[in-house]
Amino acid sequence: MSNIFHLLNNKFYSPQLEEEIALASKVFVLVDSNTLEHVWPIVASTAGLNQVEILEVEPGEESKSLEICHHLWASLLESGANRSSLLINLGGGVVTDLGGFIASTFKRGIKFINIPSSLLAMVDASSGGKTGINLGHSKNQIGVFNEAHLVLIFSDFLKTLPLEHLRSGYGEMLKHGLIQDKKYWTDLTNIKTLSFEEIGPFIKRSIEIKSEVVTADPFEKGLRKTLNFGHTFGHALESKHWENETPILHGDAVAIGMLIAAELSTRKGMLSKEENREIQLEISTKFSLSPIISIKFDDLIKELKNDKKNTNDKINFTLLNSIGEAVYDQHCSYEELEIAFDVITKLAENNELLA
Amino acid sequence: MSNIFHLLNNKFYSPQLEEEIALASKVFVLVDSNTLEHVWPIVASTAGLNQVEILEVEPGEESKSLEICHHLWASLLESGANRSSLLINLGGGVVTDLGGFIASTFKRGIKFINIPSSLLAMVDASSGGKTGINLGHSKNQIGVFNEAHLVLIFSDFLKTLPLEHLRSGYGEMLKHGLIQDKKYWTDLTNIKTLSFEEIGPFIKRSIEIKSEVVTADPFEKGLRKTLNFGHTFGHALESKHWENETPILHGDAVAIGMLIAAELSTRKGMLSKEENREIQLEISTKFSLSPIISIKFDDLIKELKNDKKNTNDKINFTLLNSIGEAVYDQHCSYEELEIAFDVITKLAENNELLA
Repeated sequence: MSNIFHLLNNKFYSPQLEEEIALASKVFVLVDSNTLEHVWPIVASTAGLNQVEILEVEPGEESKSLEICHHLWASLLESGANRSSLLINLGGGVVTDLGGFIASTFKRGIKFINIPSSLLAMVDASSGGKTGINLGHSKNQIGVFNEAHLVLIFSDFLKTLPLEHLRSGYGEMLKHGLIQDKKYWTDLTNIKTLSFEEIGPFIKRSIEIKSEVVTADPFEKGLRKTLNFGHTFGHALESKHWENETPILHGDAVAIGMLIAAELSTRKGMLSKEENREIQLEISTKFSLSPIISIKFDDLIKELKNDKKNTNDKINFTLLNSIGEAVYDQHCSYEELEIAFDVITKLAENNELLA
Repeated sequence: MSNIFHLLNNKFYSPQLEEEIALASKVFVLVDSNTLEHVWPIVASTAGLNQVEILEVEPGEESKSLEICHHLWASLLESGANRSSLLINLGGGVVTDLGGFIASTFKRGIKFINIPSSLLAMVDASSGGKTGINLGHSKNQIGVFNEAHLVLIFSDFLKTLPLEHLRSGYGEMLKHGLIQDKKYWTDLTNIKTLSFEEIGPFIKRSIEIKSEVVTADPFEKGLRKTLNFGHTFGHALESKHWENETPILHGDAVAIGMLIAAELSTRKGMLSKEENREIQLEISTKFSLSPIISIKFDDLIKELKNDKKNTNDKINFTLLNSIGEAVYDQHCSYEELEIAFDVITKLAENNELLA
């Protein structure tokens, strides 16, 4: 596991964080109004943090905008931030994506530290160097690759997290199992209830898997594309729902995206029908699939064409050979995708009938 | 000299450029309205460039804004640019700074090639990886370090360049001599008239000096700061004049900034009085110093505090031990700076009287 991660136990205390604060000319903390209320009080007692400047944004994707960037850059400038200043991003994926981009571009780059407060951010967004904002409703179109200087994981933050946000992070964790570690997938799907107590012990393994992949391929030239499993379709679904003002959580979108990708894998003769059924069973009992029902296939195609992972107008997927083994740079035609879309939509409709 | 540079002779032809165009899924060319009219026709006959999409901005610093970035990113997205697309920046420093930033952040980075059309961009802005835009009237506050994939230098573009733009680039070239190569400084100051014919042969040496420094220290942790000689004060002067709607050219501002820095160097007992006088003589006969006269010292201090090169509230200067030897991370007090400011303002006033 990369040495930028520090897993904190029992109490929020990090000598590395205190050291970085002491080194910085000025410290800024980016929060959203939720993390300001619930998480900041836990962090604030860290030595040196009594003199920070708080930068607050609204929770949610709308904050990953150019307008908010403009506001944050101007605030840093006005407050006399310089190249030796430090930005601490305290929040979920929106805060770490946005704050990472702000820090990476302010005066051509200042140091930033991520302290993820959501499960999704702990196992995914806070590490790997993907920073960025949205362009209109197209997700993460503007950004840079730049790894945080330090990532502090304190799973106790999850104790107050609403269930749906735990489930959103759980979706990404299942992905780690599916692409790389069958035993991990099995262990994760065997948990009885989605709770902090049951999920907490697994966080470390997810971070390990992501970190190994990113270290091997930081700029997503090859292997790292396996982390996009479920994301090609998932992102499009998420963007579309956001545009329709019926936003869904990232992990929920990825869960549906993984079902589509698994179905495509089986139809291409890669993944066995048994394993595809196992994936369908586990995901459809743990996630609501209804977000796929209200969306038209044709509306998703336009979104898919904007996907960063595409090259030369082909839609690029990561697919599975088996549970625990992913293959990247697989191209699917619109026809193949439409069939998979119909299959999963039917599955979603049946699920709703049974519910 | 770094292998990203290709100096073209006699005619605009580059097999490397043609190769990159052939590899790209789609090619975009960023120009300003001047380079579209005067330079693009020379470049357009390059194989493969018949199918490009032109992105046009207005000439001048105003185009290095967030609003223009928004417009350009959206244009790329709408035109179906993806990670295999290529952006060619054809223009002066504004176009290469802006286009470099756009390319570095679109979908977390696409390839870009710089084809500088001004002397300043050839010897300075087009290489070294400094990309960026302004925040309000504060120059280059937002950006990243990211080197162009290729830089094509075709000095024939300079044949149509107005004299003041030649002089602006000449200012940066003199800087290269002052910080690193006394013989180069002497050769450059010995030219009889500021013309394409006399300047052209020196371009290569300036690129070499810059390239050596940047290769040794790409992220400006140490040695690269020597390239900022004359820029601490120069940038502040430039920003202030821009804010006052009396914009001055970058190289002209740097020329005055170098006089201030040389004066500071002598007052600190570093640079000999003789060499300082030599610098004053050469620069004051080749550049107009009047832009310093209309500016109040106190107004510059606020600008100076925003300088990226500062740490911990001290104003950081690069000074000279002698012509050809620069020292970075030298701190000056406001008092020292004010004295130097007054000396150079007097010099400027006397120059005006003599003119």
